[in-house]
Amino acid sequence: MKITKEQQQEIADQQSQKNVTKRVTSSELEKILYDVIPVLDHGFVRVVDYMGDDSSIVQSARVSYGKGTKKVSTDEGLIKYLMRHWHSTPFEMCEIKYHVKLPIFIARQWIRHRTANVNEYSARYSILDKEFYVPEKKHLSAQSTINRQGRGDLITGDQADEVLQILKDDATRTYSNYEKMLNEKFDGTIIDEKKSGLARELARMNLTLNSYTQWYWKTDLLNLLNFLFLRADSHAQYEIRVYAEAMLETVKKWVPITHSAFLDYRVGAIHVSAKGKKVIQQLAKGEKVSIESSGLSKREWNELMTSFDFKEHIK
Amino acid sequence: MKITKEQQQEIADQQSQKNVTKRVTSSELEKILYDVIPVLDHGFVRVVDYMGDDSSIVQSARVSYGKGTKKVSTDEGLIKYLMRHWHSTPFEMCEIKYHVKLPIFIARQWIRHRTANVNEYSARYSILDKEFYVPEKKHLSAQSTINRQGRGDLITGDQADEVLQILKDDATRTYSNYEKMLNEKFDGTIIDEKKSGLARELARMNLTLNSYTQWYWKTDLLNLLNFLFLRADSHAQYEIRVYAEAMLETVKKWVPITHSAFLDYRVGAIHVSAKGKKVIQQLAKGEKVSIESSGLSKREWNELMTSFDFKEHIK
Amino acid sequence: MKITKEQQQEIADQQSQKNVTKRVTSSELEKILYDVIPVLDHGFVRVVDYMGDDSSIVQSARVSYGKGTKKVSTDEGLIKYLMRHWHSTPFEMCEIKYHVKLPIFIARQWIRHRTANVNEYSARYSILDKEFYVPEKKHLSAQSTINRQGRGDLITGDQADEVLQILKDDATRTYSNYEKMLNEKFDGTIIDEKKSGLARELARMNLTLNSYTQWYWKTDLLNLLNFLFLRADSHAQYEIRVYAEAMLETVKKWVPITHSAFLDYRVGAIHVSAKGKKVIQQLAKGEKVSIESSGLSKREWNELMTSFDFKEHIK
Amino acid sequence: MKITKEQQQEIADQQSQKNVTKRVTSSELEKILYDVIPVLDHGFVRVVDYMGDDSSIVQSARVSYGKGTKKVSTDEGLIKYLMRHWHSTPFEMCEIKYHVKLPIFIARQWIRHRTANVNEYSARYSILDKEFYVPEKKHLSAQSTINRQGRGDLITGDQADEVLQILKDDATRTYSNYEKMLNEKFDGTIIDEKKSGLARELARMNLTLNSYTQWYWKTDLLNLLNFLFLRADSHAQYEIRVYAEAMLETVKKWVPITHSAFLDYRVGAIHVSAKGKKVIQQLAKGEKVSIESSGLSKREWNELMTSFDFKEHIK
Repeated sequence: MKITKEQQQEIADQQSQKNVTKRVTSSELEKILYDVIPVLDHGFVRVVDYMGDDSSIVQSARVSYGKGTKKVSTDEGLIKYLMRHWHSTPFEMCEIKYHVKLPIFIARQWIRHRTANVNEYSARYSILDKEFYVPEKKHLSAQSTINRQGRGDLITGDQADEVLQILKDDATRTYSNYEKMLNEKFDGTIIDEKKSGLARELARMNLTLNSYTQWYWKTDLLNLLNFLFLRADSHAQYEIRVYAEAMLETVKKWVPITHSAFLDYRVGAIHVSAKGKKVIQQLAKGEKVSIESSGLSKREWNELMTSFDFKEHIK
Repeated sequence: MKITKEQQQEIADQQSQKNVTKRVTSSELEKILYDVIPVLDHGFVRVVDYMGDDSSIVQSARVSYGKGTKKVSTDEGLIKYLMRHWHSTPFEMCEIKYHVKLPIFIARQWIRHRTANVNEYSARYSILDKEFYVPEKKHLSAQSTINRQGRGDLITGDQADEVLQILKDDATRTYSNYEKMLNEKFDGTIIDEKKSGLARELARMNLTLNSYTQWYWKTDLLNLLNFLFLRADSHAQYEIRVYAEAMLETVKKWVPITHSAFLDYRVGAIHVSAKGKKVIQQLAKGEKVSIESSGLSKREWNELMTSFDFKEHIK
Repeated sequence: MKITKEQQQEIADQQSQKNVTKRVTSSELEKILYDVIPVLDHGFVRVVDYMGDDSSIVQSARVSYGKGTKKVSTDEGLIKYLMRHWHSTPFEMCEIKYHVKLPIFIARQWIRHRTANVNEYSARYSILDKEFYVPEKKHLSAQSTINRQGRGDLITGDQADEVLQILKDDATRTYSNYEKMLNEKFDGTIIDEKKSGLARELARMNLTLNSYTQWYWKTDLLNLLNFLFLRADSHAQYEIRVYAEAMLETVKKWVPITHSAFLDYRVGAIHVSAKGKKVIQQLAKGEKVSIESSGLSKREWNELMTSFDFKEHIK
Repeated sequence: MKITKEQQQEIADQQSQKNVTKRVTSSELEKILYDVIPVLDHGFVRVVDYMGDDSSIVQSARVSYGKGTKKVSTDEGLIKYLMRHWHSTPFEMCEIKYHVKLPIFIARQWIRHRTANVNEYSARYSILDKEFYVPEKKHLSAQSTINRQGRGDLITGDQADEVLQILKDDATRTYSNYEKMLNEKFDGTIIDEKKSGLARELARMNLTLNSYTQWYWKTDLLNLLNFLFLRADSHAQYEIRVYAEAMLETVKKWVPITHSAFLDYRVGAIHVSAKGKKVIQQLAKGEKVSIESSGLSKREWNELMTSFDFKEHIK
């Protein structure tokens, strides 16, 4: 990851601020505010602003439920209750803003979450950085043969070298041709003073999908948790999961009680279907169970048994 | 407006906070943070949290447009440009949270703006306050005879007295019967120890629509401006307009440059239709204009002439 | 429920349409299109338009996953897979529009679901119908003593009679005063030709929250299912649950495969927390379990045991 | 544009449907339902489903305003009134679904409109088509020297040939390397039976941004008009404008009254700021105007004069 001198200065300026505020402040998050958290080879995540903390969730829940919440004596008890019973609106009362640098093919996955506010670097106006993602060898997996969406065994040896060479060569060549069409280098140098450059909004189409872009991404805590639930999951693509994992750590610093409840009631939780429930009931009573009598497909059966680590029942 | 001792203490506690933060801070908004701004007879608006200021809009616009924004030298110039050309996403980068107390019939208008986060006091859990809106005499207007949605002349004399008496009596009686059904007074006193009270979620249906409710309402600056554009407008119902006007003052303190651009390019602006444009062109050339040749209906014609104060052309 | 002659004619006209279309059509839903489904004493739900059916979900899923979905041979298998793995976007491809008549206090709960499109009858423009909700005796419950949000035992005898009398009297009196202030009866008769009536936007504030309103409510299938999951649930207030149940029946006619998957994977499903998972694992292995060692609160413990009907473990 | 035999068959099957429905039907839109409307060199737009028509807007407006709308006698008058006064919710009552094939760099612009439902072809699951956008020579513009976001003069001669050659070569080479890494041709042929292919979710990153993707895109009429207002505008990038223009034609067939009001009150309309209003007032009175006294910047001044075609005042 390459942080320019200009950016370093900007970050230093931001971090040197010492403003006095009457607003609720999260002391642990303040410590890493504006910090560059490296992700992948050239990407990063930075928290650049936030609003509220665990106490803001509690406060708005107490407004909603009025005197009715007095019985739940602690903030932790109340937050756990809200999370367990899907009372979602109090979690919308906190807001966070990230500055993210990420490959375009990941940005395209990310943007499907429509509930956030986004300001992305515009390649219509400006020239994209000369940076592109190339995976480490240990993440160079073959297409899974059992899961259309997943990764299988590692690709190794000559084939791995060839893949990496292709990715580097093609990104370099297309970027170099991007500059040629623009008649301008990434650093602003004009290539041929006698020529005009192709419009930026056109030239960009020659770049590969592993080129890096960047954006400001702002969302409330509820939608952030929904995003992290899907993207920090083991089924998410590795290249977006690493962003989600880095962000999950910032959530832990920001709203530690909510983070803990999220791990217990969402990340580590299991969703059991109506048919699956009957199987669990039989197992708990020591009764015999079988795919046939359960009404589950083999795939569902195995998903259920895997989720509870009932290895002896996996077919 | 009645602020209980408990609430006064809570506000004093909030205002005594002195946290140090690296976040962007709006010094003028800090001065009124948590303050109770009275609206109507028992309502209020309070800013209870915020994120960002004018500089946050500029910052995210500069990320979007990259080096392309360097030509617009000042922050003010850039914000005006964004507002004029409907570049909306940078304004989404600021967020604000209000605590509002308001009559239920106004809350029902307000909630149609779906893009905010809301936590409302729940009358399923808790007993509503014994407070209801009664208009001042000077706002007691008759139904307009020319505009189905508007107010006409003032209602005065005996008829005004009668209306006010009805509003007070009916609200008082229904509230008193609400307590009777709950078997509990607004202050928590049980009326008859031998009886159970009706479920709160049922008893509330007896209250009139001028009963006060309250909520936390959080939104980004773009959606707030859209809300204020509609609700601070002269065609909005008086009882919601006073809330919008109070909030517009908080926007002025929070993001003064944006506030000024909003007045120039939105609040004071005129929208001229394609047909209306031709009329204006003719007027500017000193040509004769007429409803007939304009293709406008009489209503549209008058709306156009009124918006430009061309009184001599109003039919 | 009172359907005016005018409305009966409108419904008959709508139902007599016989248009030929190349669009996907749900034959079972067509049979009840525009039908008035009575809910509560004066309310109703009607399906007035829709777009797509089960096959539309399958079609867009196959576009998303391309040739990758060929392995899932049947439409039913694919829809179940999508529902089980929270692949939500294909369910957004279907849309439905309802016409609903409902008490205002229920409308206020309903509108919190912000993802729908709504056009509500405006009491600023027009006079509300003279209809208000009064519960049947069998739904007249006391406030629950164990659940702040719920209903307890039935209220009976004289107390029940008194409650019903209050609800009827107060609604009747406030409506009658509403007419008096408007100087106009619900049927349009002017009361006193020499007087102006109070503006409608003001007079409406005198009505009680059990007055009926109506709206067009349009949403996609995904958001409809989220709404029904929360509002057809046993913890939802009875007066909104009956609407949700009526709508669930229309979903069954419209998209029967999705409806069945929804019952299995959502309505009848159980969400088990990370801590709860360990308890289930121990039970299945025949090990001894206890609240103390589980790390669950008594409340959570009982919720878990109740959800699996493990009655012997409920404390 | 290449429509495979399989797709041709699917379209023929869709178009041969003759379902009877009680739903509102737009006869003009039915005529082109499912038709492939070619856009750019390999892209297209198809209307694949819809709900409602002009009469649905009128119907829900009449529910909102009740008897209050009887005075507006015609449907056209009411729709024009709604459009002119920004009454937006009735336009949300219509819904439309498109199937679109478009270059990825355009898809990235398009998706910023967050209010639609989207199902995109997934390159995690399946192999992308071997098709990429190459502009026609007449659209090969240089970067504008006066507008950071726009296009300037055409690029011609050898330079144009070179640009086109680069775009073709780079897209072809990166696609060919994509196949090599996948160890699979676009038509499913395995290249080397002894090897595994790289995971699809990784290999796709080598493709250039002019590769074509496709999606189902569903939105309500209000949001569609907002999208078209921005994207059919002359300042929009040519490559997205052609999609917007094709869609605007489908809107004309679907809801002709709304389409006409949209052209008059939005597309052809002018937004005049508070300061600009004063200038117009002076012009209409035959008074002298000047930039200096207007308080407008030169840029704003010229925008205002250009919008009214007051050429003699452009500086």
